[in-house]
Amino acid sequence: MEDLHLQNTLSRKKEKFVPLKAPFVGMYVCGPTVYSEGHLGHGRSAVIFDTLYRYLKYLEYEVRFVRNVTDVGHLEDDEAEVGDDKMLKKARAMNLEPMEVAQYYLNMYHDDLDKLNCLRPSIEPLASGHIPEQIELVEKLLENGYAYEHEGNVYFDTLAYDKVFGYGKLSGRNMEDLLSGSRDLEGQEGKRNASDFALWKKAPDGHIMRWNSPWGVGFPGWHLECTVMSTKYLGTKYDIHGGGLDLQFPHHEAEICQSNGCINDPHSHELDEAKYWIHHNMITIDGVKMARSKGNFISMGQLFAGTHPRLSQAYDPIILRFNILQSHYSSVSDFSDKTFKASETAFQRLSEAYHRLQALDPEKYPAGDINEEYEQNLPLSKRMPVR
Amino acid sequence: MEDLHLQNTLSRKKEKFVPLKAPFVGMYVCGPTVYSEGHLGHGRSAVIFDTLYRYLKYLEYEVRFVRNVTDVGHLEDDEAEVGDDKMLKKARAMNLEPMEVAQYYLNMYHDDLDKLNCLRPSIEPLASGHIPEQIELVEKLLENGYAYEHEGNVYFDTLAYDKVFGYGKLSGRNMEDLLSGSRDLEGQEGKRNASDFALWKKAPDGHIMRWNSPWGVGFPGWHLECTVMSTKYLGTKYDIHGGGLDLQFPHHEAEICQSNGCINDPHSHELDEAKYWIHHNMITIDGVKMARSKGNFISMGQLFAGTHPRLSQAYDPIILRFNILQSHYSSVSDFSDKTFKASETAFQRLSEAYHRLQALDPEKYPAGDINEEYEQNLPLSKRMPVR
Repeated sequence: MEDLHLQNTLSRKKEKFVPLKAPFVGMYVCGPTVYSEGHLGHGRSAVIFDTLYRYLKYLEYEVRFVRNVTDVGHLEDDEAEVGDDKMLKKARAMNLEPMEVAQYYLNMYHDDLDKLNCLRPSIEPLASGHIPEQIELVEKLLENGYAYEHEGNVYFDTLAYDKVFGYGKLSGRNMEDLLSGSRDLEGQEGKRNASDFALWKKAPDGHIMRWNSPWGVGFPGWHLECTVMSTKYLGTKYDIHGGGLDLQFPHHEAEICQSNGCINDPHSHELDEAKYWIHHNMITIDGVKMARSKGNFISMGQLFAGTHPRLSQAYDPIILRFNILQSHYSSVSDFSDKTFKASETAFQRLSEAYHRLQALDPEKYPAGDINEEYEQNLPLSKRMPVR
Repeated sequence: MEDLHLQNTLSRKKEKFVPLKAPFVGMYVCGPTVYSEGHLGHGRSAVIFDTLYRYLKYLEYEVRFVRNVTDVGHLEDDEAEVGDDKMLKKARAMNLEPMEVAQYYLNMYHDDLDKLNCLRPSIEPLASGHIPEQIELVEKLLENGYAYEHEGNVYFDTLAYDKVFGYGKLSGRNMEDLLSGSRDLEGQEGKRNASDFALWKKAPDGHIMRWNSPWGVGFPGWHLECTVMSTKYLGTKYDIHGGGLDLQFPHHEAEICQSNGCINDPHSHELDEAKYWIHHNMITIDGVKMARSKGNFISMGQLFAGTHPRLSQAYDPIILRFNILQSHYSSVSDFSDKTFKASETAFQRLSEAYHRLQALDPEKYPAGDINEEYEQNLPLSKRMPVR
């Protein structure tokens, strides 16, 4: 079996991949929050982990690939944990039921990923579909002393956790920095420490995504779902957890806290949820971070149809896939009309070469004088352009 | 606005369709149990309700179309409510986690329906994703006196219900017949009446699909999910409930019992869940009921690839769609290689005529002498065959 080496964010080292229980491999990747069109960043994540998934299968591992769908709990301001739920806000704007919004954008996401030739995950669980399991995890954390309740909200107690496990393993952030650097706690009533995060949020009046819980009517905090669904489908400790670099903190750090807090033993062999934490870097558009407010936000649909003002033409989905794979996953990738044009040319050249090789008759063309004679036999339109 | 008339199973009449709250229309259709390939019967259901959905949209209604996915609770023997959970049995056979089986066959179902050119529903909720709501409905029925618990199982009390609402509104079956005609209660310990049905089942040891409940660890009865998810996304009373005739009893009868038992008022205007209950008839293959055991079970994939021994060729998905729409939804539809061949010929003829009409220039061909001159200008291969 060939080797695979992965840059492990947790150890900060490039490591040889050795599964916990070969030939089985469990891989969990953070999927989309389905409240808007999938953009080029979603495309990058999908292609990178699809490539890893395919390579693991090529290495003959039996891979269970779980990618979640966030349809509840993701608030507008992730870090401060305030603002509207993203799904709910969009549902109000569209005058639809939140699950109708989720279905609409999930279908669109699937279509985009099919076009990118990404294999579908083994399981694609929804956050809203795992409420009892999320409530049980919160109960466990309360029982173990790593969480506290305040008027219908439940928060994770990062200070209590820090004393036992040491906070910040994945992101390298420590409690001191976090506590001094944090914004004030406006809108986060009852949080003991600025670094604490919500496990369960009380639903305000009129909040239509709501479930009963031991702490009243509410909804789960965003970080909860991934710990719960990865544990349910891959076990307490599994092989690979993937996602974008923007998820490393606070999302993935919080996942590790939740998982370890449940285990409640700082010497357990099952700590830190996954053995390998893999993060791909972010994208820029013409050198600038992509954002709706900057007018450089390009959806996959716009790229495939060529309908964004920054694009001179439509690009076939395979060009996006090829472009993504031209840069290393740990580098920032810059997208622009120019880079897509270059990828298109490069892909066409590679594709032509591939088809020529396919057509070669090794008996007829002994090594050494292949090109010239082969070229002469090709119709003009298929001959390699002179450069 | 044009009229639509529907054969309403509940009233046993053909009725003019008048929505409860125009221009909004709520439609719920029973979707697949995702433990095997979708077969021709699934295709028929999908195309029939897709046609209704499209027609309602054409009539300018704002339609919310909900179609569920059954991924838990559907036991092998529906009526006796015994045997393994269908998903779980398949998961054991495939050596996979049940949700991996569900995802695999759900993806296949989606692909088949895309090929049949069916629009996707507004919301496609999973039974396993609505456990808290199902538990709450059981609690409500216990509170209202229409359910009882026995050693971790909860059953619906059809006798108690019958006294208040009259059992059998949809199917026309009455309690006397049911009680005398039923099989014995083997494997259904604690049922008071043979006509009672499970709302919550105790999970046997090793049953991997299990959730905590007030009655211990278990899983929901099959009928529960549809009442719960239709109510959640369409309200207590909505416009149309659709499904196959095989679901009329016991599944849809049980849904009505559950819904009415929650309302707990025999004079309410919200009784019976839906205003119009629409059932399409079953299919046969060469005149015989389709069943795996009879060797005449044809999946959509087999039809589209022509890989079933009863098929002489592959059929384009549009031929299945066309064939389905050639018979009335309330008739039994017989599928065979011969009927598909006939549909293919008929579809080609219709399609040719359509393209000819598209190509007609009304200026050039005044009414009356279209055919002859047009035919002469067509390439030979496109000319209407002489019949």
